[in-house]
Amino acid sequence: MTHWPLPLPMHRALAAAKAAAGLGEVPIGAVIVKHGQVIAEAHNAPRTDHDPTAHAEILAIRRAAQALGDERLTECELWVTLEPCAMCAGAIVHARIARLYYAASDPKGGAVEHGARVFEQPQCLHRPEVYAGIGEAQAAELLRAFFRERR
Amino acid sequence: MTHWPLPLPMHRALAAAKAAAGLGEVPIGAVIVKHGQVIAEAHNAPRTDHDPTAHAEILAIRRAAQALGDERLTECELWVTLEPCAMCAGAIVHARIARLYYAASDPKGGAVEHGARVFEQPQCLHRPEVYAGIGEAQAAELLRAFFRERR
Repeated sequence: MTHWPLPLPMHRALAAAKAAAGLGEVPIGAVIVKHGQVIAEAHNAPRTDHDPTAHAEILAIRRAAQALGDERLTECELWVTLEPCAMCAGAIVHARIARLYYAASDPKGGAVEHGARVFEQPQCLHRPEVYAGIGEAQAAELLRAFFRERR
Repeated sequence: MTHWPLPLPMHRALAAAKAAAGLGEVPIGAVIVKHGQVIAEAHNAPRTDHDPTAHAEILAIRRAAQALGDERLTECELWVTLEPCAMCAGAIVHARIARLYYAASDPKGGAVEHGARVFEQPQCLHRPEVYAGIGEAQAAELLRAFFRERR
């Protein structure tokens, strides 16, 4: 069976997720791309950083905004290994991310296609284009392996 | 007419909001209290910091978690001058804030009693106690004055 090759940003997001697992953090990784260039990448780090907001998406958005010297990430893409939660979906709106690509769905914590459905709210100021499922199997397996070891 | 005096943390959150306006930032302030002691305060700073996540609540939560050396803010109260957005409500959940006090409601951007209603989602992992309207008139007037000047 031939698999369609994963786009490079999702490869890098998965590699960042793997690095998080090595540090005892839930394996989630994120990459921000502008005009085909990776401008920021990050993994989940709330335990290491003593920071409940240190999700991969938040860290990647903060780094990209620093790199660009602009609070708006217009024309940027966010690639992340798991469906963003309400906090991260809200940050995506504030940052004006143009396109969101995520791998695995998250029925428990996700807020894009589940729960708070942040982008579907009538008052939502900015709606990114959303593409789900790219690298889903790899991202889900990383999470399963992480929680299996900890049980 | 006698007004019930505002609790000290809301006074300080309003003072932080005023400081934000002086820097050209939307006037919103937040304070975190643990066992009667203020352990962090912050104002809105996305423009100054080039950081779309730099809402008063996020900055206060990050500072409090740093101060405690813990990603969980159990037994802490968050006092903020405006109803939190989806991003900040999500951060409040992740931080396990025990009680949320906010001044003005925000029908456009709020996600507590409006829009995404983050704490009312069935999958929401942690629900703070919520008290609204304390200092509402002062907080709303700060925001009105700020936007009036900019029109």
